[in-house]
Amino acid sequence: MAFSYPYSRIAQAMRPSPIRELFALTQRPGMISFAGGLPDPAIFPVERFAECADVLLGEGRTALQYGATEGYAPLVGWVCQRMTAFLGQPVSPAQVAIASGSQQLLDMLARVLLDPGDVVLVESPTYPGALHTLRNAGARFMLVPSDGDGIFVEALPELVERCRRETGQAPKLLYTVINFSNPSGATLSLQRRRQLAALLPTLGVPVLEDDPYGELRFEAEPIPPLYSLAGGQGVLYASSFSKILAPGTRVAWAVGEAELIRRLVLAKQGMDLCTSMVTQVLVAEYCRRGHLDAHLAAIRRHYAVKAEAMEKALETHLAAHASWTRPQGGFFYWLSLPGQDCQELFQRAVAAGVAFLPGRAFYPDASETVGEPAAGREFLRLCFTFAQPEEIQEGCRRLATALSAPASQPSPMHGHAIEDHGRRA
Amino acid sequence: MAFSYPYSRIAQAMRPSPIRELFALTQRPGMISFAGGLPDPAIFPVERFAECADVLLGEGRTALQYGATEGYAPLVGWVCQRMTAFLGQPVSPAQVAIASGSQQLLDMLARVLLDPGDVVLVESPTYPGALHTLRNAGARFMLVPSDGDGIFVEALPELVERCRRETGQAPKLLYTVINFSNPSGATLSLQRRRQLAALLPTLGVPVLEDDPYGELRFEAEPIPPLYSLAGGQGVLYASSFSKILAPGTRVAWAVGEAELIRRLVLAKQGMDLCTSMVTQVLVAEYCRRGHLDAHLAAIRRHYAVKAEAMEKALETHLAAHASWTRPQGGFFYWLSLPGQDCQELFQRAVAAGVAFLPGRAFYPDASETVGEPAAGREFLRLCFTFAQPEEIQEGCRRLATALSAPASQPSPMHGHAIEDHGRRA
Repeated sequence: MAFSYPYSRIAQAMRPSPIRELFALTQRPGMISFAGGLPDPAIFPVERFAECADVLLGEGRTALQYGATEGYAPLVGWVCQRMTAFLGQPVSPAQVAIASGSQQLLDMLARVLLDPGDVVLVESPTYPGALHTLRNAGARFMLVPSDGDGIFVEALPELVERCRRETGQAPKLLYTVINFSNPSGATLSLQRRRQLAALLPTLGVPVLEDDPYGELRFEAEPIPPLYSLAGGQGVLYASSFSKILAPGTRVAWAVGEAELIRRLVLAKQGMDLCTSMVTQVLVAEYCRRGHLDAHLAAIRRHYAVKAEAMEKALETHLAAHASWTRPQGGFFYWLSLPGQDCQELFQRAVAAGVAFLPGRAFYPDASETVGEPAAGREFLRLCFTFAQPEEIQEGCRRLATALSAPASQPSPMHGHAIEDHGRRA
Repeated sequence: MAFSYPYSRIAQAMRPSPIRELFALTQRPGMISFAGGLPDPAIFPVERFAECADVLLGEGRTALQYGATEGYAPLVGWVCQRMTAFLGQPVSPAQVAIASGSQQLLDMLARVLLDPGDVVLVESPTYPGALHTLRNAGARFMLVPSDGDGIFVEALPELVERCRRETGQAPKLLYTVINFSNPSGATLSLQRRRQLAALLPTLGVPVLEDDPYGELRFEAEPIPPLYSLAGGQGVLYASSFSKILAPGTRVAWAVGEAELIRRLVLAKQGMDLCTSMVTQVLVAEYCRRGHLDAHLAAIRRHYAVKAEAMEKALETHLAAHASWTRPQGGFFYWLSLPGQDCQELFQRAVAAGVAFLPGRAFYPDASETVGEPAAGREFLRLCFTFAQPEEIQEGCRRLATALSAPASQPSPMHGHAIEDHGRRA
């Protein structure tokens, strides 16, 4: 008789992340993938990063030992210096936490803020990985409508009020990707940022300003971070090396008020004691050698070319079916296809050799939503950074073919995996 | 006015880990530290590990990219092969999870099993890091008495019954370090392992067999793991590269039933997406080159010399005050000092230039304990792996001096930090 594990309520509600589940699909031979939000490995600074590994000889006894939960001091120092310039406010080490990717930062924050059943305000649509982490902390969700200029800040007071009415307390967190959001590609406008900064003290809802893509702007001028506009009050600013250097390092950082940081560090102590010192030492060395800014310039050019290719390909092949806002940076196009069921389209697209992420993945289920749920049925996300420019053309052509094809049963070859994905997304 | 964060109940109960808090103390000039459970950095294979970094050139695009949450396939393959031999049962990739240190494995398991308020059975005394992780998951604790042969297995049915009576349900987990336990140094005897394996199906309480020290046996013969004796039913076996290679890698693994592993991986997805591919690739390469077993043999010899030095030093300086069981491996001596308040002794010891961890750190507070609490007032832990043999002699001499000194107020120089520690431990 098999042993029966007494699973927690949270474990019973867990489900596979649709993004991780897509890994297998996107790796089929011949598939053009706009699905996963992956950096282009062709642009990874493999040689320069590998060169930095000679620091392991001199710093090996530090790199191989346990480190402080707060982070490797030279890396924390680098973050303080860079963030002081970027945020326009002095950032001290006590205001910095290093984490094993910004996914872990969100998990740390969830542990520090959320009791099971608490409500988190998320953009509609939002990053599925955030839904996954927050769901695993027992969160429920409330959707903040958004457009090409980011979330409707003016909707927040009524949403908070409704949450109070329906659950007895205010939401515990507003999670937002303010630059080139995942999946919408939208950037919160300066006007809305100012509005949000002004609202925060009254709303009383802390904000995680998740900014993994901010440095990947290839058009127009940067907009000041919410953290700066709010004077650092009630905002945790987070960024990461995943998109600007390499996700395989799993190194991210947050800047916030010292007392919040202290509690985040206490949460992290129980999660992994410290982020790998090996990768922290390597990343710190890469930054110390001054490689990061040159690399950033190269990535921006590299991805601008791909975004341009995507824009052209969409205009050529999909203008009749879809509408979209051209992103000024980041990784994503978010397409609206009125009248289409993108979940069903996904099946035909994969059969035609192109993968994307159906809109449904970017919304919580109705059962875990407080207030109005949303489905995202008529939307899909295209990641333009992973595929090569010529693949982008061909991929959009295939997508148009799939759109024109009659809705049908999935082919026997792909049927199972696709249906499976459909249920999970 | 400062922004007021709506902290969770768990955040309000969080407290600093006494071990992490000691970092600062142990790094004072001239201090001999038996406090932190740290490997000796002098034995880290710095050159061989750094040499392995040339794999980053060939495997760079894999090492720098996101990886599967389950782990880097060649590393999972290595674990399957090694664990199949070690556990004496075939281990497939679906039964393996890679994690960012075994601290994360415990956090994953807590997320999958525990609802807030659920009870975990822990050894008395137990690893403070485990208490920290489990407390952050909202756990309460029930102590399983132990001696030099590990936990009293025969006490378990009554403890489970008492837990049912007092909380309405059985404990959700038994957490135990079965070889050279932290802090007691005790190893669960073969007889008790058999007894426990036989009891498991009736008890219905899953076991985390945490085994970071098992390979560090320098005396007598290894005892079969509980996992093997229980036929893999109801037992998650966990081990790590932290003590056998280097903690700075943050790479650990677990072996268990496929369905449990699947859920653990879902929990990990929300925690950090995947363990750093950079460190996984480096560790896998180190193992592929066959360095690990030679290194293990060297560590065992290295630590056997230190354990011998500790045994002699204790006999010379502390036989009149303390009693202990000589460990056959691992990192720790656990001293019983009848009539002493080791928290108070700690203050005098630090003033005399030697640090240890007072027994209190290894027990949950009475307020979070179901059943009989324990205090550990008359105990202390000495880690023998970090200090050098001549320091071990001198450190034990200083400890004896501190023991003979009259109890006094802490010196003005050290008073604050020590009192602080005292409150936190």
